[in-house]
Amino acid sequence: MQQSDPSHNPVIAFLTDFGLSDGFVAVMHAVALGITPQARLIDISHAIPPQRITDGAWTLANTYRYFPPSTVFVCVVDPGVGSVRRPLALHAGDWYFVGPDNGLFSYILMQQPVHKAVALQNSAYHLQNISSTFHGRDIFSPVAAYLARGVTLDDLGPALDPASLVRLPLQPAHRDGQHVEGSVAHIDHFGNLLTNIPSQLVPELFHAPSVSLTIANTTIRDRQRYFADPSQHTGSPFIFVDSSNYLAIAIRNGNAARTLNVSCDTPLSLTIDSK
Amino acid sequence: MQQSDPSHNPVIAFLTDFGLSDGFVAVMHAVALGITPQARLIDISHAIPPQRITDGAWTLANTYRYFPPSTVFVCVVDPGVGSVRRPLALHAGDWYFVGPDNGLFSYILMQQPVHKAVALQNSAYHLQNISSTFHGRDIFSPVAAYLARGVTLDDLGPALDPASLVRLPLQPAHRDGQHVEGSVAHIDHFGNLLTNIPSQLVPELFHAPSVSLTIANTTIRDRQRYFADPSQHTGSPFIFVDSSNYLAIAIRNGNAARTLNVSCDTPLSLTIDSK
Amino acid sequence: MQQSDPSHNPVIAFLTDFGLSDGFVAVMHAVALGITPQARLIDISHAIPPQRITDGAWTLANTYRYFPPSTVFVCVVDPGVGSVRRPLALHAGDWYFVGPDNGLFSYILMQQPVHKAVALQNSAYHLQNISSTFHGRDIFSPVAAYLARGVTLDDLGPALDPASLVRLPLQPAHRDGQHVEGSVAHIDHFGNLLTNIPSQLVPELFHAPSVSLTIANTTIRDRQRYFADPSQHTGSPFIFVDSSNYLAIAIRNGNAARTLNVSCDTPLSLTIDSK
Repeated sequence: MQQSDPSHNPVIAFLTDFGLSDGFVAVMHAVALGITPQARLIDISHAIPPQRITDGAWTLANTYRYFPPSTVFVCVVDPGVGSVRRPLALHAGDWYFVGPDNGLFSYILMQQPVHKAVALQNSAYHLQNISSTFHGRDIFSPVAAYLARGVTLDDLGPALDPASLVRLPLQPAHRDGQHVEGSVAHIDHFGNLLTNIPSQLVPELFHAPSVSLTIANTTIRDRQRYFADPSQHTGSPFIFVDSSNYLAIAIRNGNAARTLNVSCDTPLSLTIDSK
Repeated sequence: MQQSDPSHNPVIAFLTDFGLSDGFVAVMHAVALGITPQARLIDISHAIPPQRITDGAWTLANTYRYFPPSTVFVCVVDPGVGSVRRPLALHAGDWYFVGPDNGLFSYILMQQPVHKAVALQNSAYHLQNISSTFHGRDIFSPVAAYLARGVTLDDLGPALDPASLVRLPLQPAHRDGQHVEGSVAHIDHFGNLLTNIPSQLVPELFHAPSVSLTIANTTIRDRQRYFADPSQHTGSPFIFVDSSNYLAIAIRNGNAARTLNVSCDTPLSLTIDSK
Repeated sequence: MQQSDPSHNPVIAFLTDFGLSDGFVAVMHAVALGITPQARLIDISHAIPPQRITDGAWTLANTYRYFPPSTVFVCVVDPGVGSVRRPLALHAGDWYFVGPDNGLFSYILMQQPVHKAVALQNSAYHLQNISSTFHGRDIFSPVAAYLARGVTLDDLGPALDPASLVRLPLQPAHRDGQHVEGSVAHIDHFGNLLTNIPSQLVPELFHAPSVSLTIANTTIRDRQRYFADPSQHTGSPFIFVDSSNYLAIAIRNGNAARTLNVSCDTPLSLTIDSK
C-alpha cells in the first residue's frame, strides 16, 4: 500500500467561538495558508458559546486524540484578548497547541505529558500591525502555520513553567460506594446530555441489577447499549455510554435536553443497585 | 493546458445530520486525513434534520453528479447506529458511497448502475475500539479514506446482493393527462419550495397557454424563467425550474415556505391548460 | 526555512448567501476541484443575509487583504441571477474576483487598482447545460478554477470598461470639525456593532479629554483599548477600534446589538471634546 508522508500535509485544526458568519475564521485560514500553503485545515468547531472557555476546553478534550501526530491546534475562546493573559504554544503528547493561557488547555495539561511551553513573544512569527482585538488572526494563526512548517517552539519565545499555566477549576464526577455525583458537561446537536462520569467509574453499568439516575426531578432507569435497541421505546430517556466514553442520556428519536428541560452544568446523581 | 492527476488528490465528501458545533465532523475529517493525508475533503451538508434519512437521501441525490469521478461519499444519517442495520460500501456509476444500509442511497441505487456492494466486516480497515454510537468516526470515515487511497471494495468485506439493499418507499410525482400530483421534496435556505416534479414531466411548462399549481389553499399561475424577470412582482409566488431540474416555487426577494406556510412533504397539484 | 511554491496550491475563496444546509456550496467546491484538484478552498462566509449585496460587499472588503496574492474570490449574492446583470471577472490589486456585476465588488473597485475586467462570455470555461438559477455552480466556480490553474482573463471573454461596473451608493462616514456622522455597517457574531468610521478619521480617539457617541437614544462615553480592560464594567457599552480598523461598540461579556436594540444601518453621531 502506498504510504504518504504526513509531513507534506501538516494538519492545523481550529477551535473558536467566532461563528462562521463574519469571515473571522476565513481570515485565520487565509493567514495560515499564506505561510504554509500545503497545510491541511480542519475546523473542530466555531460554535463554542461566546467566551465560554469551559465549553471550548471540553470540546478540544473530546476531539484532539483523533488527529494525526504533530497536528497544530489553534484554539481561541478569549475574553481577555489584548489584556494581560499570555499567548502561548504548547507541545504536549503528540500534538501542538496554540492559544491564550486562560484555561482552554486544562484537559490537555491534565491528560498529556507537557514537553514544552513557550510565551509567544517573538514577533517575527506574528503578522505585522497587530490589533488588540484579533490575536487569532495576528498571532495564533501565523504561529501555528510556522509550527506546521517546522519552526520550533524555542524560536517562538521564552519557555514557560508548565506548572504556571492557567487551569480551570474542573469538577470531576465523584463516586462514593454505590453512589456517583456528577453533572452535565455538554449538550450535543441531538440534544443528548453528556455527563462528566467516565464509563470506567461505573464498570458495572450494564451488569448491575438496576441503576437509577436522577436529574432535574426525573429518574431514569433504562440502560441501552445501542440507540436503536429494539426494546427501547421512542420518547422515554435512557442511559448509554457515549462515543467519548462518558455516561450520557438520550431519548430515541427525540431531544433529551429539551424534553427534560436541562442545561449545561445541571447536577445529577447515579445510584447503582448491587443487590 | 497543464493537467493535474486527480488520483493525487482523491476527494472524500461528507453528508451527515451531526451539525457543526460538537466536533463530530472534525473527528471524521481528522481520521480520514490520518489515513490519507493527501485527500481533499468536501462537506455536502451536516444540517440534515436529525435522523431524517429521506432528507439526507434527497440532498445526496441532488449533489453527487457534480463531484469528480472516484469521489468517495461518506453519508451518515443513522438512527439505527450500533443495531442490526449493515454498514456498507457501494460502487455505483463513477463514484463510491459508504454508510449505513438504511435507505440513504435509495436514489443512487435507482439512478446509477451498481458495480458492487460489500458489507464492511473487515475490521482491519476500521478504527480500533469501536464505539456502538459513532460509526461515522470508527467505521465509515476510515473505510472511505482507505478507498480513497486505493483499497478495493473486495478488501472491505463480503459482497452484498444489490437487490437486498434497503430502499426508501419514494413517492415520485405522477402525471395523468394534463394533471400532475406531486409534493414538496425540500425547502432550501432561501425558503424556495422544491417539488418532486421533474421538468421533463412537464415539457410544455413555459409554452402552455396557462398553468395552475395549487398548494396549501394557494393557487399559483405565474411562471418565470429567471428570478429577476422584470415582469415579476416582489411578494407574489411564481413557478420556475430549479437548478436541479425540478419544478420549484419561489417569491422574489421573499421566503415562499414562510409566506405560504408550507412544510416538507406538503402535497400539491398542477394543471396544464392546453387550450 | 523550506519555501513552498504557492502556485502549486492556488487558493480559491468563496462568499455567498447560500447557507450551508442544501449542498449548494459543496457543489461549487466539487466543480472547482474537478477542474483544479490541487486548489485550496477557503469559505469566507455563506451566511450573508439573502440577497443583501451590501453585506456581502462589506464582508469581502474586510477579509480579502489577508489572502495570499493570486487568490481567486468567487462571490455570489445575486438577486438578479439569470437576468441581464453581467457575469464578470476582475483582476484588481493582487487578487482575482469572479461574480455578478451588481455592486458586490464596490469596495474592491474603490480600494484597489483595476488591472482588467472581462465579461464571462466564453462558455468553454463554463459547465455545460447552464441553468438559469445557479450561476455559482455553472459559471462562477468553473471560471474561478480555470483562473486558479493559469487561464488568463483574456481567455474568459471580452474586456469591460472598469468605469462601467456597477457600484453601490456607499455612504462613508463624514467628519465636520469635532463632529462625525456615521452608521452601523455590520453586526458581528458577538453582537458587536462595527461602524463605518475608520479610526484614521478620529486619530485623537484615545487622547481627547472626552468623546460621546450617540446611537438609538444611548450615549456612550467609555473608550477601551482592550476587551478585558480591568477598568471596564461588565454590562455597559464602550467604544473601541475593531481589528478591521473601524470604530466599534461592544459590551464586555455581553451582546451590544441586543442590549442597545440596534440593527444594521442605524445612524450614529460622535462628538470629540477637544477642551
